[in-house]
Amino acid sequence: PNYHIASIPGDGIGVDITQAAKTVLATLSSASQAFTLTYTDLDWSSFAYLKRGYYMPEDWATQLRKHDAIYFGAVGWPSVPDHISLWQMILPIRQQMNQYVNVRPTRILAGTKSPVAACQKDPKLLDWVIVRENSEGEYAGQGGTTHGHTKDAIATELAIFTYVGIERIMRFAFEVAKSRPRKKLTMVTKSNAQRHGMVLWDKVFYEVAEEYKGVVEFDKMLVDAMTVRMVEKPESMDTIVATNLHADILSDLAAALAGSIGIAPSSNLDPTRKNPSMFEPIHGSAPDIAGKGIANPVGAFWSAAEMVRWLGNGKLDEIAEGLMQAIANVTVAGVKTRDLSGEKSTTEVTEAVCQEIEKL
Amino acid sequence: PNYHIASIPGDGIGVDITQAAKTVLATLSSASQAFTLTYTDLDWSSFAYLKRGYYMPEDWATQLRKHDAIYFGAVGWPSVPDHISLWQMILPIRQQMNQYVNVRPTRILAGTKSPVAACQKDPKLLDWVIVRENSEGEYAGQGGTTHGHTKDAIATELAIFTYVGIERIMRFAFEVAKSRPRKKLTMVTKSNAQRHGMVLWDKVFYEVAEEYKGVVEFDKMLVDAMTVRMVEKPESMDTIVATNLHADILSDLAAALAGSIGIAPSSNLDPTRKNPSMFEPIHGSAPDIAGKGIANPVGAFWSAAEMVRWLGNGKLDEIAEGLMQAIANVTVAGVKTRDLSGEKSTTEVTEAVCQEIEKL
Ligand SMILES: CC(C)[C@H](C(=O)O)[C@@H](O)C(=O)O
Ligand SMILES: CC(C)[C@H](C(=O)O)[C@@H](O)C(=O)O
Repeated sequence: PNYHIASIPGDGIGVDITQAAKTVLATLSSASQAFTLTYTDLDWSSFAYLKRGYYMPEDWATQLRKHDAIYFGAVGWPSVPDHISLWQMILPIRQQMNQYVNVRPTRILAGTKSPVAACQKDPKLLDWVIVRENSEGEYAGQGGTTHGHTKDAIATELAIFTYVGIERIMRFAFEVAKSRPRKKLTMVTKSNAQRHGMVLWDKVFYEVAEEYKGVVEFDKMLVDAMTVRMVEKPESMDTIVATNLHADILSDLAAALAGSIGIAPSSNLDPTRKNPSMFEPIHGSAPDIAGKGIANPVGAFWSAAEMVRWLGNGKLDEIAEGLMQAIANVTVAGVKTRDLSGEKSTTEVTEAVCQEIEKL
Repeated sequence: PNYHIASIPGDGIGVDITQAAKTVLATLSSASQAFTLTYTDLDWSSFAYLKRGYYMPEDWATQLRKHDAIYFGAVGWPSVPDHISLWQMILPIRQQMNQYVNVRPTRILAGTKSPVAACQKDPKLLDWVIVRENSEGEYAGQGGTTHGHTKDAIATELAIFTYVGIERIMRFAFEVAKSRPRKKLTMVTKSNAQRHGMVLWDKVFYEVAEEYKGVVEFDKMLVDAMTVRMVEKPESMDTIVATNLHADILSDLAAALAGSIGIAPSSNLDPTRKNPSMFEPIHGSAPDIAGKGIANPVGAFWSAAEMVRWLGNGKLDEIAEGLMQAIANVTVAGVKTRDLSGEKSTTEVTEAVCQEIEKL
């Protein structure tokens, strides 16, 4: 089948790694003969914003809905305040495309090294899937400022949790846990201090958990204690479900513990499949290394593999696995960028992965 | 001088370690002849709550204000929902005693081991003071639930940031940074996603920073990226300032990276000294090991050292350092509890520390 992809390279290294991902996907497509991709290239970026005053045109949602998936590089550039760039592009896409799940698998890739001594000895200790609530909670977008220009200023952030929002993410998380060998789900909360929204979060978790009793093992962690457990007992966890903000923090920590934020992928999913889902590496636009040709494209490749898996809906899993294998062969061979203590360029890693795909 | 201390052992291992801290403080007092302590023992705990229906009596604030400081063990017990125990004791104390700063120093104690490979080679890499906003933000306590018993439930958490609240914590943090050899402050935010309260947070930070230009070096980190930097480049930071929730998470992570949550202290300070400040180890009540005599008392001793330092207001610094030295001598000698891969009991560690104090 042919799939239509909206490609949004965005800012900084987003441009480099989106290019790299397209190259690898083209090779995967021709080598496997299993699918083809047609791209719409969208110049929605901070540079465009600075030129014309907006990131996305008014009919952005309609444009995106004509596609089967969205491939996203990164957004954010020093000359635009971050809260403007994010609220004019990535966050509205996640919310209006009903991408209420953000899946962030984390493990130690063959040929790469964790900073944690125990994981250096046994890389298998760390193998997690973080399921992030992606539509509400601390990112609901409400709040405001009063007396803003005075010393009496007060500003608020309103986190909103809804029954429907919590129930659907819990259900999704339990299904992910059930599909994995260990069948174990750890729910993260801060309901000891946050006694309204997080208490509802806990309550709905236990309601949904009832349906999985005997099938999925589950436990509950406070977010602060969770960071300790991730460092000290990585092997004690498998699938993890957390709020929008908590999972944002924990997934960066997870990537660091696994070796590099440069390899970590994410899938912003609309599980109903009524809107296109979006695939993006979790690293940002990294202005400091943008345009230097040294960005790690592995997170982008892994995100591309997840996109292929999602598009195939069960039929392209082997092809996606092939891409993951090609990446592993390349990192094992030592073809790695600086963040993984290698010395190769983005292009060199990309070419190496393409060669491995052709050998499969 | 003699100081009046309100002692609140609270729940679980809070009882064991408060007892241990009092023993060590008594030894420090008699060995140094520099101060004495008189305690008021307050039975404010989950057990008391289950018996009589409240944690603290109505005049709790008046009672506490009669003291020079509060020594706090831990609160939380499985038979009381956490948000009840915390909002009936520790959080009201922090807020009403105007303890708007929570100071959390973290370093790798001599004789203990970080789980991070690089820090195992060079323990000096990690030496931070986390300055936590302790009075507002995500712990402001506002929010609520509507349609709570139905599937239309929505619940909110309202984070509140005020100019005055932000300014005072920033000022305190800059002063801490200035007092340390490296004179470096890292400010943590999430103003890219949280565009109201956190934007005010950033703005006030830069205003206060103006006054410290050329004196204190400073930078800004997003909370998610901060976890990565803590794991990958611990040596790049010194003093850290963050919101109530962010610092709660980061300080647990910091303790884990430094070796154990069991050694980590905290000082809840009212810098105006109009109300008593409160000293507590950052670990919780740990119901699983409560009453077994194996809790690590080091976090409690370190908190006691900070209390002595605060009470002396410059005059007891050497005495407090003596206690820290005694602790280090004991851990170096391998007299450690299980969480530090030792096999000693709470009492054995306590006795060893007392002996070291007497030798000083
Ligand atoms: C860019 C930013 C809004 C984003 C987030 O906080 O969700 C990023 O950190 C991520 O994890 O995808
Ligand atoms: C017990 C709890 C309310 C507390 C907090 O979240 O502040 C604890 O985790 C801490 O760090 O002191």
